[in-house]
Amino acid sequence: MTTTPTNLALDLGRSLVEPALRDAVRHCLCPELARVTAYHHGWTDAAGRPAEGRGGKLVRPALALLSARAASFTAADGVPAAVAVELVHNFSLLHDDIMDGDTVRRGRATAWTVFGAPQAILGGDALLAAATTVLLDTRRVGAASATRSLIAATQRMISGQAADMDFEQRDDVTVAECLRMAGDKTGALLACACALGAELVGGDVALVQRLAAFGEHIGLAFQLVDDLLGIWGDPEHTGKETGADIRARKKSLPVVAALNAAQSDELHALYHGPEPFTEADVRRITDLVERGGGRDWAQEEAARMTAAAEECLAGAGIADAVHGEFRDVAALILGRRS
Amino acid sequence: MTTTPTNLALDLGRSLVEPALRDAVRHCLCPELARVTAYHHGWTDAAGRPAEGRGGKLVRPALALLSARAASFTAADGVPAAVAVELVHNFSLLHDDIMDGDTVRRGRATAWTVFGAPQAILGGDALLAAATTVLLDTRRVGAASATRSLIAATQRMISGQAADMDFEQRDDVTVAECLRMAGDKTGALLACACALGAELVGGDVALVQRLAAFGEHIGLAFQLVDDLLGIWGDPEHTGKETGADIRARKKSLPVVAALNAAQSDELHALYHGPEPFTEADVRRITDLVERGGGRDWAQEEAARMTAAAEECLAGAGIADAVHGEFRDVAALILGRRS
Repeated sequence: MTTTPTNLALDLGRSLVEPALRDAVRHCLCPELARVTAYHHGWTDAAGRPAEGRGGKLVRPALALLSARAASFTAADGVPAAVAVELVHNFSLLHDDIMDGDTVRRGRATAWTVFGAPQAILGGDALLAAATTVLLDTRRVGAASATRSLIAATQRMISGQAADMDFEQRDDVTVAECLRMAGDKTGALLACACALGAELVGGDVALVQRLAAFGEHIGLAFQLVDDLLGIWGDPEHTGKETGADIRARKKSLPVVAALNAAQSDELHALYHGPEPFTEADVRRITDLVERGGGRDWAQEEAARMTAAAEECLAGAGIADAVHGEFRDVAALILGRRS
Repeated sequence: MTTTPTNLALDLGRSLVEPALRDAVRHCLCPELARVTAYHHGWTDAAGRPAEGRGGKLVRPALALLSARAASFTAADGVPAAVAVELVHNFSLLHDDIMDGDTVRRGRATAWTVFGAPQAILGGDALLAAATTVLLDTRRVGAASATRSLIAATQRMISGQAADMDFEQRDDVTVAECLRMAGDKTGALLACACALGAELVGGDVALVQRLAAFGEHIGLAFQLVDDLLGIWGDPEHTGKETGADIRARKKSLPVVAALNAAQSDELHALYHGPEPFTEADVRRITDLVERGGGRDWAQEEAARMTAAAEECLAGAGIADAVHGEFRDVAALILGRRS
């Protein structure tokens, strides 16, 4: 996600959701853990002083507000859904950073490197618990149903992270497994964000399903685009060096597609070999992934998913303005200017 | 908790709850994480083969079943509450073992030492999420309300663990802070277990509150007794060496009481000193805690809490048989034969 947020829905997300998100953290968490998560969100520095940090872009909250509007309610009605989705997203970031040993996020030291892994584990736990509270406290007609959906998405996200770590140990990952993992890890929460506002306000079941399907497809398209950028992206736009995902031996979608294509023996031997890659290896592997059709396949698949997402919305009977904003946020997620 | 479970309520807990608990893990978790948590629960060995392990005593589930019966429903009606409480309990054990660096639980290697911390973090996350699903999937009249209560208790438990870790760094912990921490870390989930069955089936609010207050007091009494045993307990009964908690410099309740008593300068200097304790130090500290009134205070406080728990039940209008079983389980928790 490399674009600058200059989008109506994202602006609304920031102005409506961020104060509510801060309230939820203050209200649900004890002061020690509120401190850890405020740092993680970019609201404070390591000493607890207010920071002019740029937190996340609040893409998921923006989708959740649109979701309420799609069901003919106001954006304000979707705020608890937006907050809950963002809490779950940040729960997963806090824990994933520990598991993956990542030391930098959004240009700052990750929370576990500042406060220690125990505090970051507890902070994540507390955010997950808070998400449930925020939804159920609304007492809206769809509160219980929305909570079940959010927790089901969370469970898929957890499974996706487990699968992702499992893949690192394996040399026989199939494209189907990899797509499923991406759907769980990335698609599930985006799908939930797109549907949760409508579900919370008691929107029509068919509408909720269409919105979720839209988000699921956008999530897969995003993962494909992100994986393409991780190999062929321009460092100036992506913020990571070209070939970063190859160097890290990630089982990303273009790589797995090429590994499962015919005549992939050399790629297999190189990618699953025991030695660290030389720069020549990285170039050769990048070339082999492209020749093996990994790049073309991922581009076509991303286009297919984007088109499928469009179709999900097209027949949903959503007001034109809301429909347009959904498309704008999707375009932002996929790194295209709309 | 050093007694052998030969108790009607505990037996029922085991026969009714354990199969449902296994179903919930199988149904909600992906296979990789089901494997981690099945090992943690004692159902399988590290290779995934069925184990004749002794899992937990399922004290909290037994209380949750009694809770449903207290509201004039059947134990079977309380099963989802029992399962949910036990899932939350095991979520916290999985994560706490990582944070505390504990390598042995219930006589076996802890899950994070067998599967790695990342898998144990994810396994815990998945159990917490599953607890919500189990309650909301019942669609019972009290499902949303019970879920809010369970998550509120979970939030308190998380705060208690954060406070406990914070206390390790401090030399000015007050008795009030320490009691609050114990209430959060131990009392909250026991209180929830005692009330959740009744809340789930839509029991009377006053009854639910009385049951929760009973559990809260039992939880504090348990923590006081446990802290006493950690200093003066007989190793044959407690399974840990005498003075173990002193040696670990735990800010347990009798120690904090003595530290906050008059003339505690020598105890302060010793307990907060930089050097590892000699055996003579451990004996001297134990003596100073006793002279400072820590032992007497904790014993009296435990008795007060137990009596207060009794009073909560006495006026609740619960059937005699159920009342008697609540008392039996409480006695087991407090290590007394009833």
